[in-house]
Amino acid sequence: MSLLLRGAGGARGALRPCCPWGRAASRRGLSSSSGAGVRPGRRSLLAGLAGAAAALAGLGLARRAEMVSREPVAPSLREAAEDEDELSRRCGDFMAPPVSGLRELRSRRQDVRSRMEMLIMETQSQVCRALAQVDRGAAFTVDRWERKEGGGGISCVLQDGNVFEKAGVNVSVVSGHLSEEAVQQMRSRGKTLKTKNGKLPFCAMGVSSVIHPKNPHVPTIHFNYRYFEIEEADGTKQWWFGGGTDLTPTYLNEEDAVHFHKTLKEACDQHNPELYPKYKKWCDDYFYIKHRGERRGIGGIFFDDLDSPSKEEAFQFVQSCAKAIVPCYVPIVKKHSRDPFTPEEKLWQQLRRGRYVEFNLVYDRGTKFGLATPGSRIESILMSLPLTARWQYMHTPPEKSREAEILEVLRNPKDWVH
Amino acid sequence: MSLLLRGAGGARGALRPCCPWGRAASRRGLSSSSGAGVRPGRRSLLAGLAGAAAALAGLGLARRAEMVSREPVAPSLREAAEDEDELSRRCGDFMAPPVSGLRELRSRRQDVRSRMEMLIMETQSQVCRALAQVDRGAAFTVDRWERKEGGGGISCVLQDGNVFEKAGVNVSVVSGHLSEEAVQQMRSRGKTLKTKNGKLPFCAMGVSSVIHPKNPHVPTIHFNYRYFEIEEADGTKQWWFGGGTDLTPTYLNEEDAVHFHKTLKEACDQHNPELYPKYKKWCDDYFYIKHRGERRGIGGIFFDDLDSPSKEEAFQFVQSCAKAIVPCYVPIVKKHSRDPFTPEEKLWQQLRRGRYVEFNLVYDRGTKFGLATPGSRIESILMSLPLTARWQYMHTPPEKSREAEILEVLRNPKDWVH
Repeated sequence: MSLLLRGAGGARGALRPCCPWGRAASRRGLSSSSGAGVRPGRRSLLAGLAGAAAALAGLGLARRAEMVSREPVAPSLREAAEDEDELSRRCGDFMAPPVSGLRELRSRRQDVRSRMEMLIMETQSQVCRALAQVDRGAAFTVDRWERKEGGGGISCVLQDGNVFEKAGVNVSVVSGHLSEEAVQQMRSRGKTLKTKNGKLPFCAMGVSSVIHPKNPHVPTIHFNYRYFEIEEADGTKQWWFGGGTDLTPTYLNEEDAVHFHKTLKEACDQHNPELYPKYKKWCDDYFYIKHRGERRGIGGIFFDDLDSPSKEEAFQFVQSCAKAIVPCYVPIVKKHSRDPFTPEEKLWQQLRRGRYVEFNLVYDRGTKFGLATPGSRIESILMSLPLTARWQYMHTPPEKSREAEILEVLRNPKDWVH
Repeated sequence: MSLLLRGAGGARGALRPCCPWGRAASRRGLSSSSGAGVRPGRRSLLAGLAGAAAALAGLGLARRAEMVSREPVAPSLREAAEDEDELSRRCGDFMAPPVSGLRELRSRRQDVRSRMEMLIMETQSQVCRALAQVDRGAAFTVDRWERKEGGGGISCVLQDGNVFEKAGVNVSVVSGHLSEEAVQQMRSRGKTLKTKNGKLPFCAMGVSSVIHPKNPHVPTIHFNYRYFEIEEADGTKQWWFGGGTDLTPTYLNEEDAVHFHKTLKEACDQHNPELYPKYKKWCDDYFYIKHRGERRGIGGIFFDDLDSPSKEEAFQFVQSCAKAIVPCYVPIVKKHSRDPFTPEEKLWQQLRRGRYVEFNLVYDRGTKFGLATPGSRIESILMSLPLTARWQYMHTPPEKSREAEILEVLRNPKDWVH
């Protein structure tokens, strides 16, 4: 199944969500779709939505205060009925029907598994619509795919648009048994996992995206938010979250770097002021192209194996991060998408794209995990690669050039927010 | 140090080798440079040169029969003196002075280590000159580099030429101690190695090359011939050869495929008729992009861990393979370098370049070994990547198109020579 979502007009809120699965297309615009889900009494489920997404949804800062209540509240029968309506209303804005299906999502709507699936679908939809709008009419291809071994996903790709060279936003919800190789990989990351005949039943879901713009003055963004559940041989369940958002500019713009990091810091600070500095450093360490001695970009946040302080709080933190994606990036795209550029600047962008490919294919754990997993959807995994890239032997930018300036930051990461 | 070798004129033999290390440039042309080294009495050392290189050097088939003598002959004093002259004469045609230096090469001129270093230098020089001639005046950059931990190399790169988009021919001769990681990697390949405090003194040398032409009707070639020596904790030495030559066309041309494989088969058959089928299959198995279910190209030959029947015979086999490079490839380049092509054909080439990058960064053992080895020269290792590449989401060629035709062969390798 392959469908197209075209960004209509240019006015905010005028963008029509595509509803490819039978229901009439919703008439609600982007600005109201997140806000519509927030009702008194269901704070725990949706509080995170009010985080950085406030800037997007126009809810204002007041809503952030609601985040003090962190324990789930048992719903009354009436509330449960309202929840069902709300669930299908929210699903109406998605790019495609959720992998698990409405009935299943309803039956365990209090579970973090269901709430995370709703969050990643919502994130995909919000990002795709914001990008389609910025791209002034470009098309998102929507592919809904199934995985033979269990689960499936929705891949949304905008290729060769007006502003974006390649923008992919992918959701996947998969389950099955982890291969021995994957189990080993997790063990090496400090997890002790008790397998049964070397097998581990698992469920993994996430939203991941790489956006490569055409203009070398518009940076590339990558984000990924994911949730894992593993059932050990003795029936105990392990769960954890992982994720991050990071920026890869071709040229350094300090104002943009500060805006980007500040937005992410605000999302983190709502939960714990220690998170941003810790995850900022983790990001600089993770996106390191060891053989070049360079980071892939100017960082952002990155975390993995997050299983504290509680599942609820971890989920809400991830929710805040997901809601920060559009406000940390889209203003930068709007600011620079019409900047003039020279052929030399385009060439430098292509060389940096080459480095992006090097990181993704040589080091990125998600990509390596995906390529090594039988039955995984290669087109969705390698969606992260740019449309075009270049490798030039011994290319060294002149001293004090703008190319040398960004290289310096890639070699020695800076603190952008104090 | 960076020097340029420009292919002069177009007439064969008029190409002047550059002698960047103090001696006056040799006036001998390409056609005589290999032949000049072959004298009666030194059959064992140079017999392999007469292999497929006959086509290049104009020596005729008669010389192949000399390969029956496979044991080294102890030289008389006079012969030794002549050897010295011959050694410096042969070095005069190289792209740069050999890494080990003339004095060292002379002092152990009977050793396979020295003879292999001469062979890889000679191969580099022959290939570079043949390519420069075909490229009608393009420039080879010659970089001679040293490795802090021991040894060094010579990288010759022709970038953005008339015929070639990027042509790199690299020689390296390195020594030192293998890292624990590298030792583990070798253990997993079936070698049992006794280390001393986890360390292994080693010496490795090789010539490796990837040639990416501009015209989508001219295939990419890759070759690599290498020699390893390792000294174990108890003083015993292990040695082995590895190598191969393989072709990656954007479009299938059966005549070219047959010529390429036939030339390699002839080089192998001089030594043992079992070698070609064995190494042809190994090549198809090795250059496999598992996540795509495709081979990188239409194969050729590939072998590793070659340590039989004797060091001498293994060396002579490698020599024959090295001498087959120019005759198996250059005629194909000459045949197609002026073929007209469409923008669609160029685009398909770019997508195949993307696959080339995927193989090299995800699977190629040499690249992975290089990237993981501290102090290795990244620019030389990643010289193999094309100048430009492309990744397009869900690109599927129409059935029965010429693009589908090559994909079919990449998915189901064919026997080209019976």
